[in-house]
Amino acid sequence: MTRILTDHDLQMPALMPLAIEAVEDVLRQRARGAFVSPPRHAVSIDGAGDLVFTIGGGAGGQSPVAGFRAYTTFSVQQDDQLVAVWNVETGTLKAVVIGSLLGAIRTGAIGGAAIRYLSREDAQVVAVIGSGLQARTQLEAAVAVRPVREVRVFSRSAENRDRFAMEMQQRLGRPVQAVETARAAVEGADIVLCATVSPEPVIRAEWLKPGAHINTVGPKTAEAHELPVEVAAMARRIATDSPAQLQAYGRPFFLAGTPQLSRMEDLADIVAGALPAGATGQGRGLDDVTLFCSTGLAGTEVVVASALSDHLDQSR
Amino acid sequence: MTRILTDHDLQMPALMPLAIEAVEDVLRQRARGAFVSPPRHAVSIDGAGDLVFTIGGGAGGQSPVAGFRAYTTFSVQQDDQLVAVWNVETGTLKAVVIGSLLGAIRTGAIGGAAIRYLSREDAQVVAVIGSGLQARTQLEAAVAVRPVREVRVFSRSAENRDRFAMEMQQRLGRPVQAVETARAAVEGADIVLCATVSPEPVIRAEWLKPGAHINTVGPKTAEAHELPVEVAAMARRIATDSPAQLQAYGRPFFLAGTPQLSRMEDLADIVAGALPAGATGQGRGLDDVTLFCSTGLAGTEVVVASALSDHLDQSR
Repeated sequence: MTRILTDHDLQMPALMPLAIEAVEDVLRQRARGAFVSPPRHAVSIDGAGDLVFTIGGGAGGQSPVAGFRAYTTFSVQQDDQLVAVWNVETGTLKAVVIGSLLGAIRTGAIGGAAIRYLSREDAQVVAVIGSGLQARTQLEAAVAVRPVREVRVFSRSAENRDRFAMEMQQRLGRPVQAVETARAAVEGADIVLCATVSPEPVIRAEWLKPGAHINTVGPKTAEAHELPVEVAAMARRIATDSPAQLQAYGRPFFLAGTPQLSRMEDLADIVAGALPAGATGQGRGLDDVTLFCSTGLAGTEVVVASALSDHLDQSR
Repeated sequence: MTRILTDHDLQMPALMPLAIEAVEDVLRQRARGAFVSPPRHAVSIDGAGDLVFTIGGGAGGQSPVAGFRAYTTFSVQQDDQLVAVWNVETGTLKAVVIGSLLGAIRTGAIGGAAIRYLSREDAQVVAVIGSGLQARTQLEAAVAVRPVREVRVFSRSAENRDRFAMEMQQRLGRPVQAVETARAAVEGADIVLCATVSPEPVIRAEWLKPGAHINTVGPKTAEAHELPVEVAAMARRIATDSPAQLQAYGRPFFLAGTPQLSRMEDLADIVAGALPAGATGQGRGLDDVTLFCSTGLAGTEVVVASALSDHLDQSR
């Protein structure tokens, strides 16, 4: 029987470590060329909008699965996403996930893999810019992989940042403080999580502490980017989860035409050990700034959904 | 809330007339260029097989929906199909259908539309060649649109054809007889439904009665076809539900290179009234043989799923 999962089933914080492991498994498969993740496929329905597919899978991972995420641009109010997972060995439709939470969990999990392999191992202070669902799962992922003791959140709406602080403090069991400026969040932070929809930079490079690691989840095109290019220029290492998808974006990447573009590393190679990991100290000076540009590697939704479905099966 | 449907929910014979109406609505939309149904999209997962999508939708039908069917070639034993339907006006994921029955119902419904618009209105005797799921839904569709009094079924396995006869007689409430040769089924039949997987012709043109209508659902490539080309040569009219998909087949259509190819009509134009319908007598002499080549117009699954979901909502 196909397992049907909705946002309701995916609320538990305990799922994030499993999602991060699943993403790392995908990245290792991809590093050895064993994971298929073509550019997204979109079909335009005249007069309505687009139906968009990100498809991916691999026969050689811990869990041999393939499938897709489908979403639409029919309405700005509503975007019911669908993720489907087939077991490639049996042909069984293993799980169907409906809702928007899985997408945020897997983007969080990609961010968590980046933090594990790029940030300082002793990172304790986290700044969060943004207070939406993506900001929540990025923070949850940081907490899953680093000894986080203190969290500071800024977003433009005081109401939103206060609610974020209250809810996440309860969820994570550690202090989360809303602050009145982005600068107050970022200064002194070991990890900076940018998860906004801002077309203009929300932080400044000079606020960053030596040794800081930054994840950027929001806009990062030439015309709209939540990080200033100076942050990339300052970063000793810059990585992304899908160099291919960055190039396949309809609009140019915000680092196109800068010397930073050629320095970009593939997170898959880092996770697979082909490039030195930051976490071990081999590849990172303690004062190096590191930057991760999240693109949302196609197929990660599928493998994360598979792992969470397996876990929920076992825990019943 | 998204409605989840499985094969269990789609058992009722009462659904076929609704499915046929939904297909005819799609065909009318397509005739005026208001239904999107691109060629199928396949992604190969290395070492496993393909993930295949047929996508379609339209904003201008009775039910403004879009979505897709997804299926795989991972296993010969198991092919769990998934159909998803979005309301294009609200962005809501309206229904998800899991299983193989919906695909057979919509192929039946396409056959039913063809029978309604091409066969003699007084057709009473139906021959069925094949005894699988597709043969069942073709027959159900014929019964939905014509005053069928007698059904004769042939398939190679006596056990299968006997079971088909017993089960369909009970389901349809009219006589269904298993016969020992294809010829015994076809001779004298007003409607001949071929739904086999045979790579070689299963009937002969000379068995056909004047005025007979034939649906071919099984193989119809140059190298493997369940109908002999002579049937097409004899047919006064030949139609298909998707001329575009016939051309996009990986292998050439069985009528490629014959004079019949240029005579093919688009069922959409017939249903929309742009070409004369057979049923009214305007377009058909009573003794004309007519042929319908079923290709499975992409997007019909979506609109049929939408209609059946609406009906099941109302009947609870």
